[in-house]
Amino acid sequence: MRNFIIVGHRAVTYPPFSLNDLPGTGGRVDILARSINVAFLLSHGMREGVEVTTVLLGPEDPPKNIRFIGTELKYLNPDERSTGALSRNALIKYNTMKTNPEKKQFERSLVQNDILGNELRSSPGVYISNSGFAEILRYYSEHSILVCLIEKGSDLSNLTEQLKNNYKQNLTFILSDDKDFTAEEEDLINKYSKFSLSLGPQTLHSDHCIILIHNILDNLEIKNIKP
Amino acid sequence: MRNFIIVGHRAVTYPPFSLNDLPGTGGRVDILARSINVAFLLSHGMREGVEVTTVLLGPEDPPKNIRFIGTELKYLNPDERSTGALSRNALIKYNTMKTNPEKKQFERSLVQNDILGNELRSSPGVYISNSGFAEILRYYSEHSILVCLIEKGSDLSNLTEQLKNNYKQNLTFILSDDKDFTAEEEDLINKYSKFSLSLGPQTLHSDHCIILIHNILDNLEIKNIKP
Repeated sequence: MRNFIIVGHRAVTYPPFSLNDLPGTGGRVDILARSINVAFLLSHGMREGVEVTTVLLGPEDPPKNIRFIGTELKYLNPDERSTGALSRNALIKYNTMKTNPEKKQFERSLVQNDILGNELRSSPGVYISNSGFAEILRYYSEHSILVCLIEKGSDLSNLTEQLKNNYKQNLTFILSDDKDFTAEEEDLINKYSKFSLSLGPQTLHSDHCIILIHNILDNLEIKNIKP
Repeated sequence: MRNFIIVGHRAVTYPPFSLNDLPGTGGRVDILARSINVAFLLSHGMREGVEVTTVLLGPEDPPKNIRFIGTELKYLNPDERSTGALSRNALIKYNTMKTNPEKKQFERSLVQNDILGNELRSSPGVYISNSGFAEILRYYSEHSILVCLIEKGSDLSNLTEQLKNNYKQNLTFILSDDKDFTAEEEDLINKYSKFSLSLGPQTLHSDHCIILIHNILDNLEIKNIKP
């Protein structure tokens, strides 16, 4: 199982963004859309053993998180506009529920999660709640090893070495959008994360990092390296 | 210098596609847009020593090729819609020139290339002409080593081993969109390409392959491995 948490520091939480301008009106929600796509999509098919959580911290109603669960996920297309639409749809449905809490139509779409509270299933495999970064880290730390990807982390060879002994386990990789983690976020990460790693000499986009991680793990799996 | 050639087998050549539906109306031009973006864009900056050529073979006026030259390139944003707009703009300008050949406005935007003929500069760093795959391969084979990326190529360790001795040279990587190369295209590739390589056990999108190639070369460069 490979999980990815991506923090969108300016990603808008409500009212929703325009699909014609994901970077501007969405607060760089295009970064999150691309990260979701590359986490799941192969050239001809989908990776099922993947979960992606985007943490939205932008205006006007933060925090929100949207979780994409590979085993259930439908309607994911390779273009970022349609993935942006899945996130937008989640924000709209969540807000509709919040402002009309008595509507029975939402009852069967609500899933109780011990840590994340009430999650609303906005479409197959897409869940939204108002939990923040701390709760998301806590949730994934309970059943996986957390790995933070940052520029100043240790280098790729250490990564391969460390993953060699862990690639079969549940792994959760924590990434930021185009902004660095804040000091508060770093404190939270240090509380939950075992490893802090860098993927190379260049500062890469979060979707590029996800592709590299998948490739490293794919190659470790094919080589069938035993722990 | 790192060059990438990506063949868009259905990518429309004229009339232009809708920016609201790059995959459908563009003939999977979204794949090309993402490939262009990842080839050039770092998290905070641009790779200058890169050229990307998209070969468009879809309806209704094939072939076309659009070349993106890193040292001159402007107006490249990280979202795929705006990169789609750069390509669309090139197609529109090329067609306007073709249907109004006497207009003097195009004279100073035309660049003569010995192999590719008249290239029209549609915006800074973006050149379009009606040369096809064969001419593009011939052009890049004259000043670089061609490497074809296909599923059945030899594996990653060979790639690293072979690039170790070539990473400082001009390299040109040849990729396809979501369709396999045709038999005719394979014949052309075999004529010009020295290497045929695969990047891992999974079938990846072309933009994912470009990210992996960049990372391998970045790490080789930082390690400063001598031939």
